[in-house]
Amino acid sequence: MKQRAMIQYPRSEKCYVSGRVNKIQVGMRRITLQDTVQLTASGEKTVKPNSPLVVYDTSGAYSDPQFEKGEAGGLPPMRAESYGRRKDLCRDEGRGAYRAKPGKIVTQLYYAKKRIITPEMEYVAIRENQQVETLGLKSYITPEFVRKEVAAGRAVIPANINHVELEPMIIGNRFLVKVNSPINYRLELQEPIREVEEQLLNYLAIGCDTLTALFEQEERPMEEADHLRSALLRRSPIPVGVNPLLATAWAGELDWPLFRDRLIALCEAGVDFVRLYPSLLRGECEQLRQRLLRPRSLEYRIWDNWFLAHKGEENFLYVHFDELCEILGSYDVTLSLGDGMRAVSIYDAAADSLRQEELKRVRELVRRAWDHQVQTMVESAGHAPMDKIQGQMKEIQYMGHGAPIFTSGPLLTNAACGLDAVGMAIGGAQAAWQGASLLCCSEPEEALRGKSDTRRGYYQSLIMAKIAAHAADVAKAHPGAGMRDHAICKAMAEGNREADAEALSLIPKRFLKLLK
Amino acid sequence: MKQRAMIQYPRSEKCYVSGRVNKIQVGMRRITLQDTVQLTASGEKTVKPNSPLVVYDTSGAYSDPQFEKGEAGGLPPMRAESYGRRKDLCRDEGRGAYRAKPGKIVTQLYYAKKRIITPEMEYVAIRENQQVETLGLKSYITPEFVRKEVAAGRAVIPANINHVELEPMIIGNRFLVKVNSPINYRLELQEPIREVEEQLLNYLAIGCDTLTALFEQEERPMEEADHLRSALLRRSPIPVGVNPLLATAWAGELDWPLFRDRLIALCEAGVDFVRLYPSLLRGECEQLRQRLLRPRSLEYRIWDNWFLAHKGEENFLYVHFDELCEILGSYDVTLSLGDGMRAVSIYDAAADSLRQEELKRVRELVRRAWDHQVQTMVESAGHAPMDKIQGQMKEIQYMGHGAPIFTSGPLLTNAACGLDAVGMAIGGAQAAWQGASLLCCSEPEEALRGKSDTRRGYYQSLIMAKIAAHAADVAKAHPGAGMRDHAICKAMAEGNREADAEALSLIPKRFLKLLK
Repeated sequence: MKQRAMIQYPRSEKCYVSGRVNKIQVGMRRITLQDTVQLTASGEKTVKPNSPLVVYDTSGAYSDPQFEKGEAGGLPPMRAESYGRRKDLCRDEGRGAYRAKPGKIVTQLYYAKKRIITPEMEYVAIRENQQVETLGLKSYITPEFVRKEVAAGRAVIPANINHVELEPMIIGNRFLVKVNSPINYRLELQEPIREVEEQLLNYLAIGCDTLTALFEQEERPMEEADHLRSALLRRSPIPVGVNPLLATAWAGELDWPLFRDRLIALCEAGVDFVRLYPSLLRGECEQLRQRLLRPRSLEYRIWDNWFLAHKGEENFLYVHFDELCEILGSYDVTLSLGDGMRAVSIYDAAADSLRQEELKRVRELVRRAWDHQVQTMVESAGHAPMDKIQGQMKEIQYMGHGAPIFTSGPLLTNAACGLDAVGMAIGGAQAAWQGASLLCCSEPEEALRGKSDTRRGYYQSLIMAKIAAHAADVAKAHPGAGMRDHAICKAMAEGNREADAEALSLIPKRFLKLLK
Repeated sequence: MKQRAMIQYPRSEKCYVSGRVNKIQVGMRRITLQDTVQLTASGEKTVKPNSPLVVYDTSGAYSDPQFEKGEAGGLPPMRAESYGRRKDLCRDEGRGAYRAKPGKIVTQLYYAKKRIITPEMEYVAIRENQQVETLGLKSYITPEFVRKEVAAGRAVIPANINHVELEPMIIGNRFLVKVNSPINYRLELQEPIREVEEQLLNYLAIGCDTLTALFEQEERPMEEADHLRSALLRRSPIPVGVNPLLATAWAGELDWPLFRDRLIALCEAGVDFVRLYPSLLRGECEQLRQRLLRPRSLEYRIWDNWFLAHKGEENFLYVHFDELCEILGSYDVTLSLGDGMRAVSIYDAAADSLRQEELKRVRELVRRAWDHQVQTMVESAGHAPMDKIQGQMKEIQYMGHGAPIFTSGPLLTNAACGLDAVGMAIGGAQAAWQGASLLCCSEPEEALRGKSDTRRGYYQSLIMAKIAAHAADVAKAHPGAGMRDHAICKAMAEGNREADAEALSLIPKRFLKLLK
């Protein structure tokens, strides 16, 4: 038996809460608190024990001393245990991947609409309100509430049936605000998989909720990126997303058949959500050239070149959108509709008619994705002054039929060069308070410029985004969100700061040096 | 002639704008931009020069290569040049300090109400809108507009007549949001003055607008603190504030006569604003004990002990408030009314009746200070969830009769232990957008715990606060606030990022490593 967990929190132990309906074990973190010692008027000591605080835990089995890594270095395939009993799944013996049986649909959205509470739904319900229930309080977050939110499309549970190591989590406006971080690694390193694992463990320890894998780089063979992505999926208890276009683009001439094959391969590998730009059409893409500053993202440049090279052709993701959704649906891969028209300058954000145009298309695409039972998020990135954030969020909520909003920032200024993480924390907190459900961390300047060691920058962005997300949870009065704050203040008032407050703190002390 | 300035900005030069009415030279920073090179349809190069961007400059004479330090290491006493002609001032030969002649009042508020535009008012008017005027645009910020805002008490120009090295600046809701940083130094250092000067230069280079000098420490003789404070004042082109109570408390038994003498000494030394708690009364101070968490500030603890030791006595700052104002008025020292009742936990902020009580007293004190022609700010610190910030700011604006709000944060969570700077940037940006005029940087955890090297933490807080302040300027559409952002985007679009964008960036590149 292994005594030392790979991720350790002070004064904390791993605990598991069993499902009532389904055979699930939800991992949580129990923080033991010191007794409250007080002096009575007569000068006697009274000692009151404090019940431990159970908090949301992203660290998976890595914070469990019992956990032993498997041969392949991955997590146990917990979710697959129940697959044998499922009549909607089949396994391609050749490719070894699960998929929906012909004519079947396996998405959480489909089951939610059918009024079926899946194990994933019960799992997230326990996860989201455990903190409250341990204090004997009631929370509105029940499995049935989760089902209703998913059925209405207001929440998604990104959980590819092939990501069998996943601990389900939920993204939606009525739930805890989540944080997504990009993950990458230094090209020159000798042991990429070890480096990816090390980064993953730090992300999980800080509280990262989802990852976007960005292993595709021009200098790197696509096979290697695929190899790394699979290694990450086998090790990751949290959802992993990708941008399939980047995972295809280097493979020569880009067209729908080629893209479709890559997409299927990614779905079979187990990616939980895909970030795509079906709403980025030729006409608007050309109009983008009128802006003061055009997007600098790789996706945008790929599409811009593609439109130039394929005169008269339209974005094939839009043209083949229904087929695209059918593929995603047969693995329950969540679709994240990117906003290709996002303003990347305060100047362009002032009157962003192109983004308005795109949102009309987003409104159409969300509806069509739902018709295919595909779970869907709407992305909102880019720049906007603070006074526009609330309006933007309300607009996207309306145009996206209430689908969860996945936002980076918005950034409130272009003038803080190299310090996007700060601007995104300021903007992200307000966006989350006003309705965004998933905050994306900034990619450090160095990463964009291809400089080598960017991990420190990634960690800093993640830490700031976590604080922004928590601030929004507190402002939205999410059940139990303030309990951690209150417990810390109680500990400080009772002089237990060093011990309790540091164990209770949102960001583990060992990461503070990253911002010092 | 000295060729190398003590503070250097890339692609920038110091320039001076002369006053139209008064004999003043307003130092600004002119950033030269590269030409715009484009290719015509016929493939010819067209070269369009870009006019330089003149930006607000806090670096004083230190960014002027011509500047030579004086014998005493201080800045030239520019403001004193005109004093000879003034009929309202006299100089105490013995103590060498200026003060108002008996029966005279010398505050900016007094002159503003008398419809007199002082050199200080013209100075700040030029400073605040130069950026716009260089582009040939008109700005509403004229000397007369400044006078009106000061006369109405909606803005203050902290400028003690004895701080003759000062470059006047203005704090008010209609002007650029300003940032205040605490300044301190490591006890164990051998050359404190050199260390203070080094810190000062870094603060100025980053864009610090005002300082709060915190040299008073229990371990340190008061004379030494006084000596350091004077050294700072002689070197600082920006206003310096103090907490006179801290500068008195260690001097044995604390009472009004003792405090008054210390206050006069500080006014004669040249401090531009004083942070005091006349609104912290015995009754409420005792009620604070009911809170989950009581303030941990030194001021609060001093008053708490004082009330215990002086049964039945009331806060002498409140009792002698009129005399206090008379003293401040005769040097034009700005009064900053501290909020002793601030909530220091999200929990207590939920229903903060004590703070409501205090605000009623603040409302009375602002009026009384104005009756004495004393420029006044209202402080608002402490904790509050995001959804309360707007309401808080509007309430303080009302209760303070529109006096400028000086805020730290508010902090939106207690759970981000050791990372207050992030929470304060998130909260500060919203507070500033909703009406706060001066943002106070957080004191790093280490400083509170008396750890040695805290400078890095101070710089980080300052950088984050500057970004928050600028984000608010952009959201409030302050004249020219967005110009820097737009210029950066234009440079990036034209491929001049490395050169221009880095020169234009809000935070000089050499400080970025502090957050990397």
